[in-house]
Amino acid sequence: MAHHEHGMEGGAGGEAGRVGHHIEEMLSAHPLKPAVDKAMLAAGIHAIDHCAQACTACADACLAEERRAELVRCIRLNLDCADICGATADVLSRQAGPDWSVVGRQLEACQAAAKSCGEECERHARHHEHCRICATNCRECGEAADRLRKALPL
Amino acid sequence: MAHHEHGMEGGAGGEAGRVGHHIEEMLSAHPLKPAVDKAMLAAGIHAIDHCAQACTACADACLAEERRAELVRCIRLNLDCADICGATADVLSRQAGPDWSVVGRQLEACQAAAKSCGEECERHARHHEHCRICATNCRECGEAADRLRKALPL
Amino acid sequence: MAHHEHGMEGGAGGEAGRVGHHIEEMLSAHPLKPAVDKAMLAAGIHAIDHCAQACTACADACLAEERRAELVRCIRLNLDCADICGATADVLSRQAGPDWSVVGRQLEACQAAAKSCGEECERHARHHEHCRICATNCRECGEAADRLRKALPL
Amino acid sequence: MAHHEHGMEGGAGGEAGRVGHHIEEMLSAHPLKPAVDKAMLAAGIHAIDHCAQACTACADACLAEERRAELVRCIRLNLDCADICGATADVLSRQAGPDWSVVGRQLEACQAAAKSCGEECERHARHHEHCRICATNCRECGEAADRLRKALPL
Repeated sequence: MAHHEHGMEGGAGGEAGRVGHHIEEMLSAHPLKPAVDKAMLAAGIHAIDHCAQACTACADACLAEERRAELVRCIRLNLDCADICGATADVLSRQAGPDWSVVGRQLEACQAAAKSCGEECERHARHHEHCRICATNCRECGEAADRLRKALPL
Repeated sequence: MAHHEHGMEGGAGGEAGRVGHHIEEMLSAHPLKPAVDKAMLAAGIHAIDHCAQACTACADACLAEERRAELVRCIRLNLDCADICGATADVLSRQAGPDWSVVGRQLEACQAAAKSCGEECERHARHHEHCRICATNCRECGEAADRLRKALPL
Repeated sequence: MAHHEHGMEGGAGGEAGRVGHHIEEMLSAHPLKPAVDKAMLAAGIHAIDHCAQACTACADACLAEERRAELVRCIRLNLDCADICGATADVLSRQAGPDWSVVGRQLEACQAAAKSCGEECERHARHHEHCRICATNCRECGEAADRLRKALPL
Repeated sequence: MAHHEHGMEGGAGGEAGRVGHHIEEMLSAHPLKPAVDKAMLAAGIHAIDHCAQACTACADACLAEERRAELVRCIRLNLDCADICGATADVLSRQAGPDWSVVGRQLEACQAAAKSCGEECERHARHHEHCRICATNCRECGEAADRLRKALPL
């Protein structure tokens, strides 16, 4: 049953315990073998997708803060990072007929966006818990993008 | 540590055991209380976001199949579902200043897209494992969209 | 020459004078005939795409205003409208294997988002020229979505 | 009147004759002056946005062709280019609180995607009019991205 399976996500051990194992399951069902390690790719897509969602939520939370005037740059970088991560995760979700130099450039943009947004969020982390959480997501996203870019068959 | 925290995702029990608990953590850090139950909202965003990713991957997998001629409609509905779910997850990730009738309409579109795509994927589930997995994700997405729409303060 | 052709966009008369004629040219090159009138479809995609861009720009302009505290709802509705219009334009840009009920639902969500965002922008139109322009784009988008929905072979 | 204004788009001369003049009007209404020349920025957003739409349509047209097996790579690159251009146009539509190095990286990714997709489309241009049109859009998009990147205050 679907919901039960989901309940196992990230469970104590075994395959279902790996981050992004649902994405990995899908990669395993693809007629083509991905060009980079499947577990790394799945974890990377997960981290980048999750960062996009966190940035969208953080932009909204910043907008709702009373001291939003201090958060204008944070909102802007959150929105950019959300858009860029969203496109990057889509590109990474495809295995057919890639141009690795395009994938690599997009991963560089993703890494730059996550670094910039994460650093700005970090500056507000003490006052805003959503910025603290978002900074963590951005750091994980940037690391994942870096790892994937280095693993590309360029 | 970030990776360790992630490793706990969906762990055996407690709060970290709930699907989408990272999204829920972000909702808890928001200055505004969401209008619907936090755990339900987080699980819904998770299911809809995950469906978007699965549909993007399934479209690509179908395209790579030798018998792709039979999968044209499946690819089309996957692409539509991915776009619609992506927009829906973004809308749901915002708590500030909503218009519930807009959110509700978008959830209806999301439910329709997931139903349509899920049914088409189901037809190919016996031959293509990626379609089987995607059909499951679409069903979960459609159920989540339905649940959220009914919970909106309309 | 490409740039010259572009310079003709919306020129004094003839085919090149129609809004969205570049989109229409692409529709004419598609192996399948679109299910609705080509000129109407092209003009609709143009209006909806343009509204998405205007809403993204208006959200950013509102964020940069000193009196941004009064514009929180406007920013939120702009962001929702941008996401929803973006997905709608993508769905409309596809002719292969559609499910018209999905397209129709997404057009309903698009119309609702454009109406809601346009009305909110209208309230700020006297003070903010970007809101006035965006309200006009939203109205055109909503009318286009309504027209297309009524023309669908449902 | 809105529709009349639109009818003037790209008219014979004057300001309304410039490509993307509607986008430029919005830039003029923004409380902040954009960091690059307004007409160039507006034309660039127009070209990149238009390329995204053309690539979405070309992917769908390729999918509908009987000889789609030869077009798998073209479809893939179209989908990537559409996603990347969409994110790029969104980033460019914001003037508040930018990080130019992020904008620059995304423009590089956009240029790479447009080059790659345009070259692949060019290979099919003799057989498929949609690929010929899309190749032209990609070339204009790549040129616009290059021009904007060089104009950034990096």
